[in-house]
Amino acid sequence: MKPNFSLRLRVFNLNCWGIPFLSKHRAGRMERLGDLLNLESFDLALLQEVWSEQDFQYLRQKLSLAYPAAHYFRSGIIGSGLCVFSKHPIQEITQHVYTLNGYPYMIHHGDWFCGKAAGLLVLHINGLVLNAYVTHLHAEYSREKDIYFAHRVAQAWELAQFIQCRAQFLPHQPGSPSHTSKKADVVLLCGDLNMHPKDLGCCLLKEWTGLQDAYLETQDYKGSDEGCTMVPKNCYVSQQDLGPFPCGIRIDYVLYKVVSGFCISCKTLQTTTGHDPHSSTPLSDHEALMATLYVRHSPPQQSPTPTQGPAERSPVINLLKEAWTELGMGIAQARWWATFAGYVIGLGLLVLMLLSVLAAGEVASEVAVLLWTPSVGLILGAGAVYLFHMQEAKGLCRAQAELQHVLGRAKKTQELDSEPQVAELLGQQAENRAEQ
Amino acid sequence: MKPNFSLRLRVFNLNCWGIPFLSKHRAGRMERLGDLLNLESFDLALLQEVWSEQDFQYLRQKLSLAYPAAHYFRSGIIGSGLCVFSKHPIQEITQHVYTLNGYPYMIHHGDWFCGKAAGLLVLHINGLVLNAYVTHLHAEYSREKDIYFAHRVAQAWELAQFIQCRAQFLPHQPGSPSHTSKKADVVLLCGDLNMHPKDLGCCLLKEWTGLQDAYLETQDYKGSDEGCTMVPKNCYVSQQDLGPFPCGIRIDYVLYKVVSGFCISCKTLQTTTGHDPHSSTPLSDHEALMATLYVRHSPPQQSPTPTQGPAERSPVINLLKEAWTELGMGIAQARWWATFAGYVIGLGLLVLMLLSVLAAGEVASEVAVLLWTPSVGLILGAGAVYLFHMQEAKGLCRAQAELQHVLGRAKKTQELDSEPQVAELLGQQAENRAEQ
Repeated sequence: MKPNFSLRLRVFNLNCWGIPFLSKHRAGRMERLGDLLNLESFDLALLQEVWSEQDFQYLRQKLSLAYPAAHYFRSGIIGSGLCVFSKHPIQEITQHVYTLNGYPYMIHHGDWFCGKAAGLLVLHINGLVLNAYVTHLHAEYSREKDIYFAHRVAQAWELAQFIQCRAQFLPHQPGSPSHTSKKADVVLLCGDLNMHPKDLGCCLLKEWTGLQDAYLETQDYKGSDEGCTMVPKNCYVSQQDLGPFPCGIRIDYVLYKVVSGFCISCKTLQTTTGHDPHSSTPLSDHEALMATLYVRHSPPQQSPTPTQGPAERSPVINLLKEAWTELGMGIAQARWWATFAGYVIGLGLLVLMLLSVLAAGEVASEVAVLLWTPSVGLILGAGAVYLFHMQEAKGLCRAQAELQHVLGRAKKTQELDSEPQVAELLGQQAENRAEQ
Repeated sequence: MKPNFSLRLRVFNLNCWGIPFLSKHRAGRMERLGDLLNLESFDLALLQEVWSEQDFQYLRQKLSLAYPAAHYFRSGIIGSGLCVFSKHPIQEITQHVYTLNGYPYMIHHGDWFCGKAAGLLVLHINGLVLNAYVTHLHAEYSREKDIYFAHRVAQAWELAQFIQCRAQFLPHQPGSPSHTSKKADVVLLCGDLNMHPKDLGCCLLKEWTGLQDAYLETQDYKGSDEGCTMVPKNCYVSQQDLGPFPCGIRIDYVLYKVVSGFCISCKTLQTTTGHDPHSSTPLSDHEALMATLYVRHSPPQQSPTPTQGPAERSPVINLLKEAWTELGMGIAQARWWATFAGYVIGLGLLVLMLLSVLAAGEVASEVAVLLWTPSVGLILGAGAVYLFHMQEAKGLCRAQAELQHVLGRAKKTQELDSEPQVAELLGQQAENRAEQ
């Protein structure tokens, strides 16, 4: 790579609100989205909520010249809704389906059926390795009583782990060259996180991965107030969707980072503002994000020895602790439901025995026979609820155990604070920040 | 790292057959397993089928001095059954739960409830980064009519992707130092793959990741004939378990690889042979594997430019194609079941309408009321089957699309065979083999 290497990356992100039969003006909006993407010719367009594979195929065909590479990420029963269109060839594709994603009996919310996931594509652009992630986390249906909070925190943690998995910057290994452990040169994450910037999951994700927020870093911002991606001006957005934030919410993001040897800056960030100048309706109920990023070569710096004491390291530790606590509350809730379902099963079995006795006798035998099948149904239903919440508890326990492990290592690191091992655990985060 | 660096790694692997209430002599076997592990003091002990977390806690306590680090991988409803005990501190823990893992209505097989997974722990031993994976794939209940074949192929592909995800050796990037993309120095995979060495999934896994089989590579082998890990001599193994292989089957493995700059050899590999010399019963229905690996420093070699033509590259391509075909058959099967369930739903709705009409009339109204609830049950059951098989089809499609992408790249590479890009796709596999 030449020392004066410089790359401009134009990225588009949109939650398309493409629910067949339910989303208004879907076909027209998809058509206009295709036109816009063809006109602007971004390097990458990352889309969410393209629930119909036909819509993806329509866009694929329409965009085939400007975006020769495309992929639809399949998962769950309906699909993840995620897809990507790229000007550059895709080298690798993989995805991670979140372990926890709502409840199957919350049919009206529907998230469980989608198999929410994080998709990854690896691109090689002018010798630069770019890992681009697209994701969509579980929706927040009520800010006040968010029954999915623990699931979203677990998803944010899994996403952070999935990103680190592919692009982690390990602490410098003695005897190894300066940046032997790098894999991706640039990491880009776009998507609808369904979290506000200060929400626990969002902070955890950013702190743990070292990803920077394009809205906060951009040199030139044009768009909706405060970078909101759901705004009241948008005719598809109701005040109910915005809850206690009538001016709008920011839940869609463009996040990025680079390894040592490169520097990245967000030259411009633009959002749509709730209406389309060429049409009476906007592209979606979410606003699109359009970012222009510049990646430049910069001489590799000596990895600074992390010098922070426990106080400086506390933000990420506090976030980990907070997430640990929230997951613990989720586990307690899941176990409560499993226990409740267990009692219902027990009660159902008792009723079944009673009905069998009644059916064998002469008094009320007809009623007993009539009630027999609903009782079996009740037991089976409660059994399914029991199994589901046991699985939920296992999934939350798993995430909590991973956090526990990290916190355990952090504690050991603090104990050995004066020794060189101090760099081990949080060196990762420290290096990420230093590199940027 | 010193040039004369050398590391001895002693590894233990066992499928423990620890099903509460069902597995014979479980408590006694766990006790003897603990004694053996304490006595031998391996670097790593990787266990499968420890279905009861109490068993894990018992072993953890018993092994706390010889193996200070331990982890139990939680997933599904019952748990993955995977756990690890390590002499060395564990730096990182993560896991991947397989998307497809049998059918919930095959309760007697039970795999679906376990949430089969691959667990990963990252260890730093004397400055060396070791990624150790432990896994357990879906069981094969019938060799002749294996309804889980496509699931196991998908699991093998996901496992291969998960391993590459953490330890992939990317093709040499222009301008970057010789081995910038390495992350783990050593990759170790132990577990019960439920696949014979020549089975499609097993070959795909080994070819795609470049992992070597300790049984085939070892300088000194002691144990059961042909390296079998389920043998007729074992009193817990029935002839039915062995199916058409009365002499035994090899389905448990120790696999490994290293990056350029290191070389690895398997000094000894030992298996138990179906009986315990100190007890009347063996440790499990599977045989344990005990390997001694040596990792040594070796001068980094210039990555050879892959010179193979299409003919030499064909093994992995053929495997990918074969897996693609098998997944296709799995998709057809899944769709058949979804369609069948769809017809049952339709039929159930018709019956329900008929029953409603009958119940409103006078003829057979009692029978109609009696049959109403079972009909609703039938519709709900068929609905669940429909959703499950739709999800199965999506999961298989996803794996097939990933294979399709790889095959597409391979085709492009073949077309550009005379140009430097030839190294792109299969350079990865070629380099892995060359490095070893």
